[in-house]
Amino acid sequence: MIIHHKNMKLSTKGFTDCRDITPEIESAVNESKVKNGLVTVMVPGSTAAVTTIEFESGAVSDLKQALDRLAPMTGEYAHNLRWGDGNGFSHVRAALMRPSLSVPIVDGKLCLGTWQQLILLDFDNRPRERSVLIQILGE
Amino acid sequence: MIIHHKNMKLSTKGFTDCRDITPEIESAVNESKVKNGLVTVMVPGSTAAVTTIEFESGAVSDLKQALDRLAPMTGEYAHNLRWGDGNGFSHVRAALMRPSLSVPIVDGKLCLGTWQQLILLDFDNRPRERSVLIQILGE
Amino acid sequence: MIIHHKNMKLSTKGFTDCRDITPEIESAVNESKVKNGLVTVMVPGSTAAVTTIEFESGAVSDLKQALDRLAPMTGEYAHNLRWGDGNGFSHVRAALMRPSLSVPIVDGKLCLGTWQQLILLDFDNRPRERSVLIQILGE
Repeated sequence: MIIHHKNMKLSTKGFTDCRDITPEIESAVNESKVKNGLVTVMVPGSTAAVTTIEFESGAVSDLKQALDRLAPMTGEYAHNLRWGDGNGFSHVRAALMRPSLSVPIVDGKLCLGTWQQLILLDFDNRPRERSVLIQILGE
Repeated sequence: MIIHHKNMKLSTKGFTDCRDITPEIESAVNESKVKNGLVTVMVPGSTAAVTTIEFESGAVSDLKQALDRLAPMTGEYAHNLRWGDGNGFSHVRAALMRPSLSVPIVDGKLCLGTWQQLILLDFDNRPRERSVLIQILGE
Repeated sequence: MIIHHKNMKLSTKGFTDCRDITPEIESAVNESKVKNGLVTVMVPGSTAAVTTIEFESGAVSDLKQALDRLAPMTGEYAHNLRWGDGNGFSHVRAALMRPSLSVPIVDGKLCLGTWQQLILLDFDNRPRERSVLIQILGE
Protein backbone atom coordinates (compact mmCIF):
# COMPACT_ATOMS: atom_id res chain seq x y z
CA MET A 1 0.00 0.00 0.00
CA ILE A 2 1.12 3.54 -0.78
CA ILE A 3 0.23 6.38 1.59
CA HIS A 4 1.34 9.70 0.20
CA HIS A 5 0.59 13.23 1.32
CA LYS A 6 1.29 16.71 0.12
CA ASN A 7 0.66 20.11 1.68
CA MET A 8 -0.65 22.72 -0.69
CA LYS A 9 -0.30 26.38 0.26
CA LEU A 10 -2.74 29.08 -0.87
CA SER A 11 -3.17 32.77 -0.11
CA THR A 12 -6.92 33.36 0.10
CA LYS A 13 -9.00 36.51 0.38
CA GLY A 14 -11.65 35.18 2.79
CA PHE A 15 -15.34 36.16 2.38
CA THR A 16 -16.18 32.86 0.65
CA ASP A 17 -13.20 33.07 -1.67
CA CYS A 18 -13.66 30.04 -3.93
CA ARG A 19 -10.58 28.42 -5.48
CA ASP A 20 -10.25 25.59 -7.99
CA ILE A 21 -7.69 23.19 -6.47
CA THR A 22 -8.20 20.33 -8.95
CA PRO A 23 -4.86 20.73 -10.82
CA GLU A 24 -2.82 20.49 -7.59
CA ILE A 25 -4.77 17.41 -6.51
CA GLU A 26 -4.25 15.76 -9.89
CA SER A 27 -0.51 16.50 -9.64
CA ALA A 28 -0.34 14.96 -6.17
CA VAL A 29 -2.13 11.83 -7.43
CA ASN A 30 0.34 11.55 -10.33
CA GLU A 31 3.32 12.00 -8.01
CA SER A 32 2.02 9.29 -5.66
CA LYS A 33 1.94 6.73 -8.51
CA VAL A 34 -1.30 5.36 -7.00
CA LYS A 35 -3.43 3.82 -9.73
CA ASN A 36 -6.41 2.77 -7.60
CA GLY A 37 -7.26 4.27 -4.26
CA LEU A 38 -8.72 7.24 -2.46
CA VAL A 39 -7.65 10.87 -2.24
CA THR A 40 -8.83 12.83 0.80
CA VAL A 41 -8.59 16.61 0.66
CA MET A 42 -8.69 18.29 4.07
CA VAL A 43 -8.41 21.93 5.10
CA PRO A 44 -7.39 22.25 8.77
CA GLY A 45 -9.17 25.16 10.45
CA SER A 46 -12.73 25.99 11.40
CA THR A 47 -13.54 28.69 8.82
CA ALA A 48 -12.98 26.90 5.50
CA ALA A 49 -14.42 23.94 3.57
CA VAL A 50 -13.94 21.64 0.58
CA THR A 51 -16.58 20.55 -1.96
CA THR A 52 -17.07 20.28 -5.75
CA ILE A 53 -18.83 22.54 -8.25
CA GLU A 54 -18.82 23.37 -11.95
CA PHE A 55 -16.15 26.03 -11.59
CA GLU A 56 -17.59 28.88 -13.65
CA SER A 57 -18.27 32.35 -12.27
CA GLY A 58 -22.06 32.02 -12.48
CA ALA A 59 -22.38 28.84 -10.42
CA VAL A 60 -19.75 30.07 -7.95
CA SER A 61 -21.65 33.33 -7.44
CA ASP A 62 -24.92 31.40 -7.00
CA LEU A 63 -23.32 29.20 -4.32
CA LYS A 64 -22.08 32.30 -2.49
CA GLN A 65 -25.59 33.76 -2.51
CA ALA A 66 -27.04 30.55 -1.05
CA LEU A 67 -24.41 30.64 1.72
CA ASP A 68 -25.26 34.31 2.37
CA ARG A 69 -28.84 33.20 2.99
CA LEU A 70 -27.80 30.22 5.16
CA ALA A 71 -25.53 32.24 7.45
CA PRO A 72 -25.68 35.97 6.63
CA MET A 73 -22.57 38.06 7.30
CA THR A 74 -24.67 40.71 9.04
CA GLY A 75 -26.62 38.38 11.33
CA GLU A 76 -26.26 38.26 15.13
CA TYR A 77 -23.77 35.64 16.25
CA ALA A 78 -23.04 34.52 19.82
CA HIS A 79 -19.46 33.80 18.70
CA ASN A 80 -19.01 37.47 17.81
CA LEU A 81 -20.49 38.71 21.10
CA ARG A 82 -18.07 36.47 22.98
CA TRP A 83 -14.86 36.83 20.97
CA GLY A 84 -15.31 40.06 19.03
CA ASP A 85 -13.60 38.76 15.89
CA GLY A 86 -16.69 39.16 13.70
CA ASN A 87 -16.39 35.81 11.91
CA GLY A 88 -19.34 33.96 13.49
CA PHE A 89 -20.86 33.52 10.02
CA SER A 90 -17.60 31.90 8.84
CA HIS A 91 -17.72 29.26 11.59
CA VAL A 92 -21.33 28.37 10.83
CA ARG A 93 -20.70 28.07 7.08
CA ALA A 94 -17.62 25.88 7.65
CA ALA A 95 -19.45 23.51 10.03
CA LEU A 96 -22.32 23.16 7.55
CA MET A 97 -20.03 22.66 4.53
CA ARG A 98 -17.36 20.43 6.19
CA PRO A 99 -13.56 20.44 5.95
CA SER A 100 -12.80 17.26 3.98
CA LEU A 101 -13.87 15.37 0.87
CA SER A 102 -12.75 11.95 -0.39
CA VAL A 103 -12.70 11.08 -4.10
CA PRO A 104 -11.86 7.65 -5.55
CA ILE A 105 -8.93 7.23 -7.95
CA VAL A 106 -9.52 4.72 -10.77
CA ASP A 107 -6.76 3.87 -13.29
CA GLY A 108 -4.73 6.85 -12.08
CA LYS A 109 -7.56 9.36 -12.59
CA LEU A 110 -9.79 11.26 -10.17
CA CYS A 111 -13.38 10.09 -10.44
CA LEU A 112 -14.85 13.51 -11.30
CA GLY A 113 -17.28 14.62 -13.98
CA THR A 114 -16.03 16.67 -16.95
CA TRP A 115 -17.54 19.88 -15.57
CA GLN A 116 -16.80 19.16 -11.92
CA GLN A 117 -13.92 20.74 -9.99
CA LEU A 118 -12.68 20.37 -6.42
CA ILE A 119 -12.84 23.70 -4.62
CA LEU A 120 -11.59 25.29 -1.43
CA LEU A 121 -14.00 27.77 0.14
CA ASP A 122 -12.47 30.25 2.58
CA PHE A 123 -15.24 31.72 4.73
CA ASP A 124 -13.09 33.82 7.07
CA ASN A 125 -13.48 37.62 7.23
CA ARG A 126 -9.89 38.40 6.30
CA PRO A 127 -7.12 37.13 4.00
CA ARG A 128 -5.54 33.87 5.16
CA GLU A 129 -2.55 31.70 4.34
CA ARG A 130 -4.15 28.26 3.98
CA SER A 131 -2.56 24.85 3.99
CA VAL A 132 -4.61 22.10 2.34
CA LEU A 133 -3.62 18.48 2.98
CA ILE A 134 -3.91 16.11 0.02
CA GLN A 135 -3.65 12.50 1.18
CA ILE A 136 -3.56 9.57 -1.21
CA LEU A 137 -4.07 5.98 -0.10
CA GLY A 138 -3.98 3.04 -2.48
CA GLU A 139 -1.74 1.03 -4.75
CA MET B 1 -5.17 -4.99 0.56
CA ILE B 2 -8.15 -5.30 -1.74
CA ILE B 3 -9.25 -2.34 -3.87
CA HIS B 4 -12.43 -3.10 -5.74
CA HIS B 5 -14.73 -0.87 -7.71
CA LYS B 6 -18.03 -1.17 -9.49
CA ASN B 7 -19.96 1.23 -11.68
CA MET B 8 -23.67 1.33 -11.04
CA LYS B 9 -25.93 2.74 -13.76
CA LEU B 10 -29.24 4.47 -13.01
CA SER B 11 -31.82 6.29 -15.11
CA THR B 12 -32.98 9.23 -13.02
CA LYS B 13 -35.77 11.76 -13.46
CA GLY B 14 -33.93 14.84 -12.15
CA PHE B 15 -35.72 17.44 -9.99
CA THR B 16 -34.28 15.98 -6.75
CA ASP B 17 -35.14 12.43 -7.73
CA CYS B 18 -34.14 10.43 -4.64
CA ARG B 19 -33.07 6.80 -5.06
CA ASP B 20 -32.19 4.14 -2.50
CA ILE B 21 -28.86 2.66 -3.67
CA THR B 22 -28.14 0.61 -0.53
CA PRO B 23 -28.79 -2.85 -2.08
CA GLU B 24 -26.31 -2.26 -4.93
CA ILE B 25 -23.69 -1.03 -2.48
CA GLU B 26 -24.19 -4.06 -0.24
CA SER B 27 -23.83 -6.33 -3.30
CA ALA B 28 -20.59 -4.63 -4.30
CA VAL B 29 -19.22 -5.05 -0.75
CA ASN B 30 -20.12 -8.76 -0.83
CA GLU B 31 -18.49 -9.21 -4.25
CA SER B 32 -15.30 -7.51 -3.05
CA LYS B 33 -14.92 -10.04 -0.19
CA VAL B 34 -13.69 -7.16 2.00
CA LYS B 35 -14.51 -7.87 5.64
CA ASN B 36 -13.09 -4.68 7.17
CA GLY B 37 -12.56 -1.47 5.25
CA LEU B 38 -14.19 1.56 3.72
CA VAL B 39 -16.69 1.97 0.91
CA THR B 40 -16.77 5.32 -0.88
CA VAL B 41 -19.78 6.12 -3.02
CA MET B 42 -19.19 8.88 -5.57
CA VAL B 43 -21.39 10.37 -8.26
CA PRO B 44 -19.33 12.13 -10.93
CA GLY B 45 -21.06 15.30 -12.17
CA SER B 46 -21.96 18.66 -10.67
CA THR B 47 -25.75 18.30 -10.32
CA ALA B 48 -26.10 15.24 -8.06
CA ALA B 49 -25.18 14.17 -4.53
CA VAL B 50 -24.97 11.23 -2.12
CA THR B 51 -26.14 11.13 1.52
CA THR B 52 -28.20 8.92 3.88
CA ILE B 53 -31.80 9.16 5.09
CA GLU B 54 -34.56 6.96 6.47
CA PHE B 55 -35.89 6.06 3.04
CA GLU B 56 -39.63 6.51 3.48
CA SER B 57 -41.74 8.86 1.37
CA GLY B 58 -42.42 11.32 4.22
CA ALA B 59 -38.78 12.01 5.14
CA VAL B 60 -37.79 12.11 1.45
CA SER B 61 -40.47 14.68 0.71
CA ASP B 62 -39.41 16.74 3.76
CA LEU B 63 -35.80 16.75 2.54
CA LYS B 64 -36.94 17.95 -0.90
CA GLN B 65 -38.85 20.81 0.70
CA ALA B 66 -35.80 21.87 2.70
CA LEU B 67 -33.72 21.85 -0.52
CA ASP B 68 -36.43 23.91 -2.26
CA ARG B 69 -35.97 26.53 0.46
CA LEU B 70 -32.15 26.37 0.29
CA ALA B 71 -31.94 26.83 -3.48
CA PRO B 72 -35.39 27.44 -5.01
CA MET B 73 -35.99 26.27 -8.58
CA THR B 74 -37.54 29.61 -9.47
CA GLY B 75 -34.79 31.83 -8.01
CA GLU B 76 -32.47 34.04 -10.08
CA TYR B 77 -29.21 32.27 -10.90
CA ALA B 78 -26.12 33.78 -12.53
CA HIS B 79 -25.41 30.34 -14.01
CA ASN B 80 -28.74 30.46 -15.87
CA LEU B 81 -28.15 33.97 -17.18
CA ARG B 82 -24.79 32.88 -18.53
CA TRP B 83 -25.51 29.41 -19.89
CA GLY B 84 -29.27 29.36 -20.40
CA ASP B 85 -29.68 25.75 -19.27
CA GLY B 86 -31.91 26.61 -16.31
CA ASN B 87 -30.22 24.31 -13.81
CA GLY B 88 -28.51 26.89 -11.58
CA PHE B 89 -30.47 25.58 -8.60
CA SER B 90 -29.16 22.05 -9.33
CA HIS B 91 -25.52 23.21 -9.18
CA VAL B 92 -26.05 25.01 -5.89
CA ARG B 93 -27.81 22.04 -4.29
CA ALA B 94 -25.09 19.63 -5.45
CA ALA B 95 -22.24 21.81 -4.11
CA LEU B 96 -24.01 22.11 -0.74
CA MET B 97 -24.84 18.38 -0.52
CA ARG B 98 -21.56 16.96 -1.90
CA PRO B 99 -20.87 14.14 -4.37
CA SER B 100 -19.32 11.43 -2.18
CA LEU B 101 -19.84 9.62 1.12
CA SER B 102 -17.61 7.06 2.85
CA VAL B 103 -19.03 4.35 5.13
CA PRO B 104 -16.97 1.86 7.16
CA ILE B 105 -17.37 -1.89 6.61
CA VAL B 106 -17.13 -4.02 9.78
CA ASP B 107 -17.31 -7.83 9.62
CA GLY B 108 -18.52 -7.63 6.02
CA LYS B 109 -21.41 -5.29 6.81
CA LEU B 110 -22.01 -1.60 6.09
CA CYS B 111 -22.02 0.43 9.28
CA LEU B 112 -25.53 1.86 8.83
CA GLY B 113 -28.48 2.11 11.20
CA THR B 114 -31.52 -0.13 10.71
CA TRP B 115 -33.60 2.74 9.31
CA GLN B 116 -30.79 4.40 7.38
CA GLN B 117 -30.31 4.07 3.62
CA LEU B 118 -27.70 5.42 1.22
CA ILE B 119 -29.35 7.63 -1.40
CA LEU B 120 -28.49 9.28 -4.69
CA LEU B 121 -30.09 12.69 -5.19
CA ASP B 122 -30.32 13.90 -8.78
CA PHE B 123 -30.85 17.67 -8.79
CA ASP B 124 -30.70 18.26 -12.55
CA ASN B 125 -33.69 19.70 -14.43
CA ARG B 126 -34.07 16.76 -16.83
CA PRO B 127 -33.77 12.97 -16.85
CA ARG B 128 -30.19 11.71 -16.73
CA GLU B 129 -28.29 8.48 -17.15
CA ARG B 130 -26.13 8.41 -14.03
CA SER B 131 -23.08 6.34 -13.24
CA VAL B 132 -22.30 5.93 -9.54
CA LEU B 133 -18.86 4.65 -8.55
CA ILE B 134 -18.74 2.27 -5.60
CA GLN B 135 -15.17 1.84 -4.37
CA ILE B 136 -14.20 -0.62 -1.65
CA LEU B 137 -10.85 -0.53 0.08
CA GLY B 138 -9.86 -2.97 2.83
CA GLU B 139 -9.09 -6.59 3.53
CA MET C 1 -2.02 -2.39 6.50
CA ILE C 2 -3.72 -1.87 9.82
CA ILE C 3 -7.53 -1.65 9.99
CA HIS C 4 -8.69 -0.86 13.50
CA HIS C 5 -12.09 0.12 14.81
CA LYS C 6 -13.57 1.18 18.08
CA ASN C 7 -17.15 1.79 19.18
CA MET C 8 -17.68 4.83 21.31
CA LYS C 9 -20.84 5.05 23.43
CA LEU C 10 -22.51 8.36 24.34
CA SER C 11 -25.71 9.31 26.14
CA THR C 12 -27.09 12.32 24.27
CA LYS C 13 -29.95 14.68 25.00
CA GLY C 14 -31.22 15.12 21.43
CA PHE C 15 -32.44 18.52 20.14
CA THR C 16 -29.12 19.20 18.36
CA ASP C 17 -27.05 18.17 21.36
CA CYS C 18 -23.48 18.93 20.24
CA ARG C 19 -20.62 16.89 21.70
CA ASP C 20 -16.87 17.20 21.28
CA ILE C 21 -15.64 13.69 20.42
CA THR C 22 -12.05 14.65 19.51
CA PRO C 23 -10.35 13.13 22.60
CA GLU C 24 -11.92 9.70 22.02
CA ILE C 25 -10.91 9.79 18.36
CA GLU C 26 -7.34 10.76 19.25
CA SER C 27 -7.22 7.88 21.75
CA ALA C 28 -8.44 5.41 19.14
CA VAL C 29 -5.79 6.65 16.68
CA ASN C 30 -3.09 6.19 19.34
CA GLU C 31 -4.32 2.70 20.19
CA SER C 32 -4.30 1.69 16.51
CA LYS C 33 -0.59 2.60 16.20
CA VAL C 34 -1.35 3.95 12.71
CA LYS C 35 1.13 6.71 11.84
CA ASN C 36 -0.22 7.60 8.41
CA GLY C 37 -3.72 6.87 7.23
CA LEU C 38 -7.35 7.86 7.45
CA VAL C 39 -9.83 7.91 10.31
CA THR C 40 -13.51 7.73 9.41
CA VAL C 41 -16.04 8.67 12.09
CA MET C 42 -19.55 7.35 11.44
CA VAL C 43 -22.74 7.58 13.46
CA PRO C 44 -25.21 4.87 12.43
CA GLY C 45 -28.80 6.16 12.49
CA SER C 46 -30.80 8.71 10.51
CA THR C 47 -31.14 11.51 13.10
CA ALA C 48 -27.50 12.37 13.90
CA ALA C 49 -24.43 13.72 12.10
CA VAL C 50 -20.69 14.34 12.35
CA THR C 51 -18.78 17.50 11.39
CA THR C 52 -16.14 19.89 12.82
CA ILE C 53 -16.42 23.27 14.52
CA GLU C 54 -14.49 25.52 16.89
CA PHE C 55 -16.03 23.96 19.98
CA GLU C 56 -16.95 26.99 22.06
CA SER C 57 -20.47 27.75 23.26
CA GLY C 58 -20.93 30.77 20.96
CA ALA C 59 -20.15 29.01 17.68
CA VAL C 60 -22.13 25.93 18.77
CA SER C 61 -25.18 28.07 19.55
CA ASP C 62 -24.83 29.87 16.19
CA LEU C 63 -24.74 26.53 14.35
CA LYS C 64 -27.90 25.42 16.18
CA GLN C 65 -29.67 28.61 15.12
CA ALA C 66 -28.69 28.07 11.48
CA LEU C 67 -30.07 24.51 11.67
CA ASP C 68 -33.27 25.85 13.25
CA ARG C 69 -33.69 28.03 10.18
CA LEU C 70 -32.84 25.20 7.75
CA ALA C 71 -35.32 22.72 9.23
CA PRO C 72 -37.43 24.33 11.99
CA MET C 73 -38.66 22.07 14.80
CA THR C 74 -42.15 23.52 14.47
CA GLY C 75 -42.50 23.17 10.68
CA GLU C 76 -44.90 20.78 8.94
CA TYR C 77 -43.27 17.46 8.10
CA ALA C 78 -44.73 14.63 6.01
CA HIS C 79 -42.69 12.23 8.14
CA ASN C 80 -44.58 13.38 11.26
CA LEU C 81 -47.98 13.10 9.59
CA ARG C 82 -47.17 9.54 8.59
CA TRP C 83 -45.34 8.19 11.66
CA GLY C 84 -46.41 10.52 14.46
CA ASP C 85 -43.00 10.52 16.16
CA GLY C 86 -42.48 14.25 15.72
CA ASN C 87 -38.86 14.06 14.58
CA GLY C 88 -39.25 15.02 10.93
CA PHE C 89 -36.93 17.98 11.47
CA SER C 90 -34.28 15.59 12.87
CA HIS C 91 -34.31 13.45 9.71
CA VAL C 92 -33.97 16.48 7.44
CA ARG C 93 -31.09 17.93 9.46
CA ALA C 94 -29.25 14.59 9.50
CA ALA C 95 -29.59 14.07 5.73
CA LEU C 96 -28.29 17.60 5.09
CA MET C 97 -25.40 17.29 7.57
CA ARG C 98 -24.36 13.67 6.81
CA PRO C 99 -23.37 10.79 9.12
CA SER C 100 -19.65 10.38 8.46
CA LEU C 101 -16.45 12.39 8.14
CA SER C 102 -12.94 11.24 7.19
CA VAL C 103 -9.82 12.97 8.49
CA PRO C 104 -6.23 12.15 7.45
CA ILE C 105 -3.67 11.03 10.04
CA VAL C 106 -0.12 12.33 9.47
CA ASP C 107 2.78 11.28 11.74
CA GLY C 108 0.30 9.86 14.25
CA LYS C 109 -1.75 13.06 14.51
CA LEU C 110 -5.19 14.04 13.29
CA CYS C 111 -4.99 16.70 10.60
CA LEU C 112 -7.14 19.29 12.40
CA GLY C 113 -6.63 22.98 13.09
CA THR C 114 -5.78 24.18 16.61
CA TRP C 115 -9.30 25.52 17.14
CA GLN C 116 -11.11 22.74 15.30
CA GLN C 117 -12.89 19.86 17.01
CA LEU C 118 -14.78 16.82 15.72
CA ILE C 119 -18.38 16.88 16.91
CA LEU C 120 -21.38 14.59 17.08
CA LEU C 121 -24.72 16.34 16.54
CA ASP C 122 -27.78 14.49 17.83
CA PHE C 123 -30.87 15.91 16.14
CA ASP C 124 -33.45 13.54 17.60
CA ASN C 125 -36.32 14.82 19.75
CA ARG C 126 -35.45 12.71 22.80
CA PRO C 127 -32.40 11.41 24.69
CA ARG C 128 -30.56 8.60 22.89
CA GLU C 129 -27.83 6.09 23.57
CA ARG C 130 -25.52 6.59 20.60
CA SER C 131 -22.77 4.38 19.27
CA VAL C 132 -20.16 6.14 17.12
CA LEU C 133 -17.83 4.01 15.01
CA ILE C 134 -14.23 5.18 14.77
CA GLN C 135 -12.41 3.36 11.99
CA ILE C 136 -8.70 3.76 11.31
CA LEU C 137 -7.06 2.55 8.14
CA GLY C 138 -3.34 2.97 7.43
CA GLU C 139 0.10 1.87 8.54
